Amino acid sequence: MAKAEPGGPSRVTVSTTGGQYDILIGAGLFSRLAVLSRKHCEEHRYAIVADDRVADLYGARAVRGFEEAGAGASLFTFRAGEANKNRATWADLTDRMLAAGMGRDTGVIALGGGVTGDLAGFVAATYMRGLPVVQVPTTLLAMIDSSVGGKTGVDTAAGKNLVGAFLQPRLVLADPEVLATLPVAEVRAGLAEAIKHGAIADEAYFDWISGSLSALLAGDVEVLSRLIRRSVEIKAEVVGRDEREAGPRKMLNFGHTFGHAVEALSGFRLLHGEAIAIGMAIEARLGERLGITAAGTADRLARVLSAAGLPTRLPTGMEPRAVVEATRSDKKARGGRVEYALLERIGAASAGPDGRWGWGVEDGEATDILNLEC
Amino acid sequence: MAKAEPGGPSRVTVSTTGGQYDILIGAGLFSRLAVLSRKHCEEHRYAIVADDRVADLYGARAVRGFEEAGAGASLFTFRAGEANKNRATWADLTDRMLAAGMGRDTGVIALGGGVTGDLAGFVAATYMRGLPVVQVPTTLLAMIDSSVGGKTGVDTAAGKNLVGAFLQPRLVLADPEVLATLPVAEVRAGLAEAIKHGAIADEAYFDWISGSLSALLAGDVEVLSRLIRRSVEIKAEVVGRDEREAGPRKMLNFGHTFGHAVEALSGFRLLHGEAIAIGMAIEARLGERLGITAAGTADRLARVLSAAGLPTRLPTGMEPRAVVEATRSDKKARGGRVEYALLERIGAASAGPDGRWGWGVEDGEATDILNLEC
Repeated sequence: MAKAEPGGPSRVTVSTTGGQYDILIGAGLFSRLAVLSRKHCEEHRYAIVADDRVADLYGARAVRGFEEAGAGASLFTFRAGEANKNRATWADLTDRMLAAGMGRDTGVIALGGGVTGDLAGFVAATYMRGLPVVQVPTTLLAMIDSSVGGKTGVDTAAGKNLVGAFLQPRLVLADPEVLATLPVAEVRAGLAEAIKHGAIADEAYFDWISGSLSALLAGDVEVLSRLIRRSVEIKAEVVGRDEREAGPRKMLNFGHTFGHAVEALSGFRLLHGEAIAIGMAIEARLGERLGITAAGTADRLARVLSAAGLPTRLPTGMEPRAVVEATRSDKKARGGRVEYALLERIGAASAGPDGRWGWGVEDGEATDILNLEC
Repeated sequence: MAKAEPGGPSRVTVSTTGGQYDILIGAGLFSRLAVLSRKHCEEHRYAIVADDRVADLYGARAVRGFEEAGAGASLFTFRAGEANKNRATWADLTDRMLAAGMGRDTGVIALGGGVTGDLAGFVAATYMRGLPVVQVPTTLLAMIDSSVGGKTGVDTAAGKNLVGAFLQPRLVLADPEVLATLPVAEVRAGLAEAIKHGAIADEAYFDWISGSLSALLAGDVEVLSRLIRRSVEIKAEVVGRDEREAGPRKMLNFGHTFGHAVEALSGFRLLHGEAIAIGMAIEARLGERLGITAAGTADRLARVLSAAGLPTRLPTGMEPRAVVEATRSDKKARGGRVEYALLERIGAASAGPDGRWGWGVEDGEATDILNLEC
C-alpha cells in the first residue's frame, strides 16, 4: 500500500475516455475549494448544489470562498435524504438554475454525500446538454465510492438509479477533516465499501483496515486519509479499465446484488454501507457454497465487518424469499438470470465463468444460502 | 457534389470521440429497419418510440419487421407535437419502459421527426445511464439535421432544448420514400436547412438545390436522396470537427439566433424551418451591414428561399424589439452578449473575429436590421 505524503494532499489521477482528472485527498483541502475548482474547472460562475443539512454546515463558507477568489457562486439546496434523489428534485434544481440565468459557462459543485453527488451530477450532465462538475464528497462513503467513476442519476418508483448518465468530474476533492461532523454510523457505512475494496483487490489493504479500525472510527485524520487514498486508487484502477461497466468494473458489485435488495426491503432504514456489509457476508458464503470462493473467506470477511460494527446477517423478520424476489428487479438482471460478483479469495474477485466478471445464480441457490444464514 | 449510387443505399460515416456510425440513405430502407438495427445495434430487444401520428402510419410495420427478424420489439407512443417534448413525456416514456421490464439489453429505435429524435434520444441517454439508439427520421428536416450530431433533449418553460445530453446514434436510417406521407410544408421546412448547408459550406450545392426545387417539392425520391446525402455529409463533416460545439460547429447556427426567437414568438405556429428561413435572410443582411458578409449575398439567399416557398421576413405584427429581447434567452448568449453565426459569402461561414465562429452583436445593431426588414 502506498504511503500518504505527510504534510501535503495526495493525488490520484483517473484516466477515462473523456480525459484525465485528479482526486485530491488531504486535511484542509476544503478551505481551498474555490481556488482548486477554478484551477481544474475554470468557468464564468459556479452553482453549488447541497442538501439543506450540508448547506447549513458548509454552504456559506463555500460561497464566501468563491467570492474571495473573485468568482461568482450561487447555492442551490434541496431537502436531505435518498427519498429526494428523484426526477422532481432534479427538475426543480434545473429550473432554479435556469431562473438564476446560469448559462453554459457554469461549473457545478456537488457538495455533499452520495445522494448529492448523484443528483447534482445528473443536473450537470443534462443542463444544456452538459456542464462540468467538481465533486466535493462530505461522507466517507462518497469519498471512496460514489465520487469516483462518473455515475450520476436519480431513483424512480421502480428502483434506484434507474435514470442517470455517466459524467466524469473535472476534480474530486476529499477533505477528511469534513468527516468530523459525520455521525459514526455513517463512518462505519463508509468502511464497508473500503473493506470491499480490500476484499476484491488487495489483501494487504484488507488486513491494514482490520488493524486500523479503532483509529478510523476515532476519526484519525491521517489514517482516514490513507484509507481514502488506497480505496480511491483501487476504484480508479478498476473504473479506468472499464468505464462503462462491461467487464471488470462489475467486481465492484460484490455484495451489491443482495445488498441492494436488503436496502430496498428495509425501506432504506439501513444505510447503504450496512446493507452492503450484509450482502458481502452472504455473497461470500454463496461463493463458497458454489465452489468459487476459497473456504474460510466468508468467516474472515464477517469478522472484520463485525469488528467495524457492521451487520452481517439479514435483519430479523426479513424473509429470504422476499430478498431473492427483490434481486430480480436489479439492473444487474440480464437475460432472465440474476448476476452476482463473487470472490475467489480475500484480495481477488472472480472473473466469472466467461471472463464477464459476473456469475448467474439460480433463485433456488440464492434462497438456500439465505435460509442457512437466518 | 458526390453522386448517389443508383440502385443501392448511400452511406455516410460519421466519426466521433465515441466511435463511428453510419448514416444510410436510400429508397426502401425502412423495410429493412429490423435487420439493419440488429446489424448495427445488436441488443436483446428493442423499444420503438414514436408519436401517435407516426405510430399510426408506421408503428405496426416496424414492430412486425422486428418480429419477423426474430427480435422482440415494443412500441411506446406519445402525443405528437413540440409541446410534448418535455420532461413529463420523457419521464412517462421511461416509466412505461421500466414497467415493461426493459433492461440494459434494450436498443431504442427513435422513429419520427425532430421531436421524436430529441425525446427518444434523451430517454435512451438517461435510461439506466444509457441505452444505444437507432435514429429513423421520418421528416426531411430530421433526416438532414437533427438525426446527425448526437444532440438529444427536451424543452422547459424557460426555453427549447435546455435539458438534454449528447448521445451519438449507432445508426441513422433515412428512407426518402417515407417522405411521401409528409405534408409539403414540412418538405419546404426541411429544404431551409439544406439551403443553410449550401450557404455555410458548399456554393455548388446551394446552386444545385436552387435548380432542383421543383423535383424536390414534387417528391422525386432520387433527387431527395442526393439532397439528404450531401446535407448529411456537410453536417457530419462539421460535427466531426467539433462534437461539443466549441468552435466550427457553431456555423450550423446560421439563421438560428433570430430564427429561434421568431419561432418562439410565433408560439411555434411557424415550423422550425420556416423560422430558420426568416432568420437566415435577416442574419445575411446583418452580416452585410456589419461588413462581414459579401454584398449581394442576402439577396441571393432570399431568392432561393422564396423560390422554395419559404418566408424571408418577420411575420406581420411581430415587433423587432420583441425579437431582440427573445434572442437574449438563447443558449448562445454568452457573457451578456448575443452570438450570431454569420456568412462570409454563399458557400463559406465566417470564422468570427477570434476563430470562435461566432460574432457578438449589440442589441442596437440587431434592432436596426430588423426595423429595416419590416
